[in-house]
Amino acid sequence: MIVILKENPDQAQLDGLLQWLEERHITIHRSVGSHHTILGLVGDTSSLDIDLISALDIVEDVKRVQEPYKNANRKFHPEDTVIRIGNLEIGGGTLTLFAGPCSVESEEQIVGIAKAVKASGAAVLRGGAFKPRTSPYAFQGMHIDGIRLLLKAKEATGLPICTEIMDASQLPLFEDIDILQVGARNMQNFALLKALGKTEKPVLLKRGMAASYQDLLMSAEYILAGGNPNVILCERGIRTFETYTRNTLDLACIPSLKTLSHLPVIIDPSHATGKAALVPSMAAAAVAGGADGLIIEVHNDPAHAKCDGPQSITPAVFDSLAKKLKRIHDITRGDREYD
Amino acid sequence: MIVILKENPDQAQLDGLLQWLEERHITIHRSVGSHHTILGLVGDTSSLDIDLISALDIVEDVKRVQEPYKNANRKFHPEDTVIRIGNLEIGGGTLTLFAGPCSVESEEQIVGIAKAVKASGAAVLRGGAFKPRTSPYAFQGMHIDGIRLLLKAKEATGLPICTEIMDASQLPLFEDIDILQVGARNMQNFALLKALGKTEKPVLLKRGMAASYQDLLMSAEYILAGGNPNVILCERGIRTFETYTRNTLDLACIPSLKTLSHLPVIIDPSHATGKAALVPSMAAAAVAGGADGLIIEVHNDPAHAKCDGPQSITPAVFDSLAKKLKRIHDITRGDREYD
Amino acid sequence: MIVILKENPDQAQLDGLLQWLEERHITIHRSVGSHHTILGLVGDTSSLDIDLISALDIVEDVKRVQEPYKNANRKFHPEDTVIRIGNLEIGGGTLTLFAGPCSVESEEQIVGIAKAVKASGAAVLRGGAFKPRTSPYAFQGMHIDGIRLLLKAKEATGLPICTEIMDASQLPLFEDIDILQVGARNMQNFALLKALGKTEKPVLLKRGMAASYQDLLMSAEYILAGGNPNVILCERGIRTFETYTRNTLDLACIPSLKTLSHLPVIIDPSHATGKAALVPSMAAAAVAGGADGLIIEVHNDPAHAKCDGPQSITPAVFDSLAKKLKRIHDITRGDREYD
Amino acid sequence: MIVILKENPDQAQLDGLLQWLEERHITIHRSVGSHHTILGLVGDTSSLDIDLISALDIVEDVKRVQEPYKNANRKFHPEDTVIRIGNLEIGGGTLTLFAGPCSVESEEQIVGIAKAVKASGAAVLRGGAFKPRTSPYAFQGMHIDGIRLLLKAKEATGLPICTEIMDASQLPLFEDIDILQVGARNMQNFALLKALGKTEKPVLLKRGMAASYQDLLMSAEYILAGGNPNVILCERGIRTFETYTRNTLDLACIPSLKTLSHLPVIIDPSHATGKAALVPSMAAAAVAGGADGLIIEVHNDPAHAKCDGPQSITPAVFDSLAKKLKRIHDITRGDREYD
Repeated sequence: MIVILKENPDQAQLDGLLQWLEERHITIHRSVGSHHTILGLVGDTSSLDIDLISALDIVEDVKRVQEPYKNANRKFHPEDTVIRIGNLEIGGGTLTLFAGPCSVESEEQIVGIAKAVKASGAAVLRGGAFKPRTSPYAFQGMHIDGIRLLLKAKEATGLPICTEIMDASQLPLFEDIDILQVGARNMQNFALLKALGKTEKPVLLKRGMAASYQDLLMSAEYILAGGNPNVILCERGIRTFETYTRNTLDLACIPSLKTLSHLPVIIDPSHATGKAALVPSMAAAAVAGGADGLIIEVHNDPAHAKCDGPQSITPAVFDSLAKKLKRIHDITRGDREYD
Repeated sequence: MIVILKENPDQAQLDGLLQWLEERHITIHRSVGSHHTILGLVGDTSSLDIDLISALDIVEDVKRVQEPYKNANRKFHPEDTVIRIGNLEIGGGTLTLFAGPCSVESEEQIVGIAKAVKASGAAVLRGGAFKPRTSPYAFQGMHIDGIRLLLKAKEATGLPICTEIMDASQLPLFEDIDILQVGARNMQNFALLKALGKTEKPVLLKRGMAASYQDLLMSAEYILAGGNPNVILCERGIRTFETYTRNTLDLACIPSLKTLSHLPVIIDPSHATGKAALVPSMAAAAVAGGADGLIIEVHNDPAHAKCDGPQSITPAVFDSLAKKLKRIHDITRGDREYD
Repeated sequence: MIVILKENPDQAQLDGLLQWLEERHITIHRSVGSHHTILGLVGDTSSLDIDLISALDIVEDVKRVQEPYKNANRKFHPEDTVIRIGNLEIGGGTLTLFAGPCSVESEEQIVGIAKAVKASGAAVLRGGAFKPRTSPYAFQGMHIDGIRLLLKAKEATGLPICTEIMDASQLPLFEDIDILQVGARNMQNFALLKALGKTEKPVLLKRGMAASYQDLLMSAEYILAGGNPNVILCERGIRTFETYTRNTLDLACIPSLKTLSHLPVIIDPSHATGKAALVPSMAAAAVAGGADGLIIEVHNDPAHAKCDGPQSITPAVFDSLAKKLKRIHDITRGDREYD
Repeated sequence: MIVILKENPDQAQLDGLLQWLEERHITIHRSVGSHHTILGLVGDTSSLDIDLISALDIVEDVKRVQEPYKNANRKFHPEDTVIRIGNLEIGGGTLTLFAGPCSVESEEQIVGIAKAVKASGAAVLRGGAFKPRTSPYAFQGMHIDGIRLLLKAKEATGLPICTEIMDASQLPLFEDIDILQVGARNMQNFALLKALGKTEKPVLLKRGMAASYQDLLMSAEYILAGGNPNVILCERGIRTFETYTRNTLDLACIPSLKTLSHLPVIIDPSHATGKAALVPSMAAAAVAGGADGLIIEVHNDPAHAKCDGPQSITPAVFDSLAKKLKRIHDITRGDREYD
């Protein structure tokens, strides 16, 4: 950590700061410039509160050198994290396709789609039972009945299930669910993150609409620090000034997050673009860009889907897309080297 | 609602759509242009799912004419909402100052600050007991002990208390708290919003970092639709590319939200700027811009505050600021006319 | 165009509007709802000034149905535009690699890099002679001497040259340049765009940091409307809150712009990411996503480049990347269908 | 400047860097931490190219301590810059109102508005003769005829004139204009900035839609470094995800820019909000927030203005607004202390 002092700092305050740092076993290197004195703090600075130091009258600025996350940091865990669910491996060079409808609507619907996407190569069934909707008047999901239907689809196909949890109090209902999804709007619902940190369930953590890479990794850190190492990061678009697409898909997050962290990175082109016609090309781009997997909305009848119809592709489109993605992955899989 | 059809729409799909709309008692006005046919839908369109219509192959675009919120909409409730807590009135032309530390730290601290800010004209004491922190390693608040100390400060000063609730499960602990704050990161924690809708407690709802005015009003709508009419909107800065300030304070939200809605609008210059030196001028700007109140971080010893020190002002600065704000409010209070 | 009237509009103003529209040969379809009356305007509305109508007291909102650009619009020009420079074809299903240093520094440097990138498959040499730099104290390019060296590199390799023009007054110096680049900061320098519209030179038009797809297409429209049909669109990252990358690369612009327009779309992963380590994966993603080409910074000695060293890759990296891009293009080239 | 080295840096590269710095008379303070070595560079680092150092393999990150602008920096020029035009003083504690129509349309219009706004207290007449319009089909201004009419209005009222220059080649036409405006879209048109640096004309420099405070100050630096000290900074809204307002007005720029720089700061609430109804409250907020002035669009007949009608207020509204602004300024003018 680097502390930049204002010109002519008050000596008593400075002495106080230096003593306070020494008590915390921080070694201080001082550089005196013409306008600024700079303190280089050496030692375990992750426990120092940057805000506390910034607040001092004598301090102009404080800059972190070390990232504020440890468990999620590739520097301390150079090997890729691989999440294992039965025989399935997510991360470490594989390509995992999550597919399914936005919402579970009926047994026929979810089992039908599950069979179709499995036949095309999907390895995880996604589907919403609890739906976070901007409007209180929109369809909110089938809740516990939706969970039951997802488990029927699992029974019928053997596909592991990924579905969204919206509140820590719902955890008991998710006992048989394989991957718990935390939505973008809950990425900093710290009560939920702490509760998930106490489980061993794989968590698909979606990036918030205004979350930086560091924010996302700090939210992952909440889960990891709680004792649960099974976190999958998911980019689903950030909010920018562009309105043609629902959000702006930030694919540079793939090599960036994989440089900063050892956790798998999954891309959601459906929510990112909000338009079915854009999903295939962005899915292909994500695989070429090094994603560990994709989560794609597939619906047998998008025009009558209870939510997010415009961004869902049909099973037929998914089938031909999955074949192409595999071919791209064969070309690019060898490139994964992050340091 | 307006539906713009693609060129040469499939007649069978179009007939299906028209019939579906008629079943919902929607009257349709059709305009045929050279490239587009436009359907004007007249009737109660708030129950129509815009996504469902957008997903049809024959549809190029759907545009809402009516806002998707009702309870929060000034069109249906032209009079300002006034929140009453004892003799205190928030909204309707008054200026209410919320002040206090970011976090409750000790009885001495919170009671001392409460007395000071009351003497300067604050009408509500703010202070965090449950703190949402980006880092799992940062101070997370005193929890139930913090609540107890806030109630002691209330006892000592008579000031109503505003403090943040992070999860619906905490509700029983907040029984004696006067105003429940929902933080920016929880603005779309719908489980929490629904729980608050079932109480009668005033809720201070902070705008999320990437939330549009409409998103904020839809979150308010969750609480209002649940039966709780006591919602106060709060702007605390949005996230943009500018990094000098912690967030970008969007003061145009004041006349905008007051045009769209009848709910009171409060400004938080402390979190918006992240720098104590910018708080007084932005507080003055907010009052001149028509805010119903301010929520300001005040700490007797910012340099040793357990969080958010850099953005806290001292009781002395608050005292002179409050005097100036009152003078500005006297000039601008008569201007409030929204239609 | 759709005009939404306020409740109970003033009849005299409304009559005035209706007459004004009729004088412009616009047919009006009126839909009367419970709260709003909607006017559907049919005819050539592209000449109507949306601001003029919005300003009327009786008008609540105006929404365009037709895009405000014509020459750039795929609806009126369904076939892909293909830019031809000698035997080179840009657009229409080909993949064109632009490569070269940020700045021309010496004959040895530019000729050496030109030979290297040509051998690896680049079809256009890029290199800056006039450099837009944020700081007046940074290296501003070799100016006319840089142009001369670029032409020497063209002579030595046969590669067409793409370089940036910063002001209309520089046009005479660019007579032998093949492709004129308009930088992101000049995307709405309308004096420059108009001047380029009067030439026949292919123009590489970079998207501004805060420009929507429509803004970019309106800037292209300036050139096209002037009589120059040879415009290539280029995404180079937009500005968002994320600071890890220099900008945020928006690859969904590829299928979006190609749906809206017939113009070729080129991606610049170097400026978008600002980090050489991210360039190969984002280049691969862009090709998989359907880009018509890439513009990549290549420098034989990035650590001593006079500008933008951190984002330049070496000729060796470019060579292996180009091979991989070709393989990805072979898989994805057949998918290009936009309507 | 601080250079953070990667772990185990290559010794030869490091020696090369150290020698290169020494040749530039930079003193180096080295701090060795557990994971990072930090170099503190002391001396005149403003001439060092941060990109050049960042590009080195051994470097993890480089952080500037000193701002990259000198002439615009308050540290080196603690006194407020005051721009003098005849008896008018802009900056230094005064409040200057610029007012007038978006575009000059006729002699009657511009002279009439000039007289009206002068009577209400405006000190500068604004009006566009060359208009940057997003669409090539929109009204582009009256050009030289517009300049002539502005000068007639000056003759009739004595008000100095502020109007936009779009290209360096137009300079001769602006000989009698008092303040040259550089529009947001041209903020980084460096050819134009350099040309303005060679004049002595006051320049109103508008912040670009995606420009940080530092970017704005670097553009001012271009003009100042050229020898022209007369720069006025102008905030007119930045582009964010919010679409209700035309742009997002960032009033925290006022105390921020005045802390960083000695240049006057003027606010444009008309372009920032795009809605006439929001202009008065945001004008009041800007004055309370410490602005040195405002630039407001005033039109005698907004509904028939040739551009920007929706954001123009009438002379009557301006008149009552100006009175209120003066009263607010009387309260807040004493607060201006920046260090």
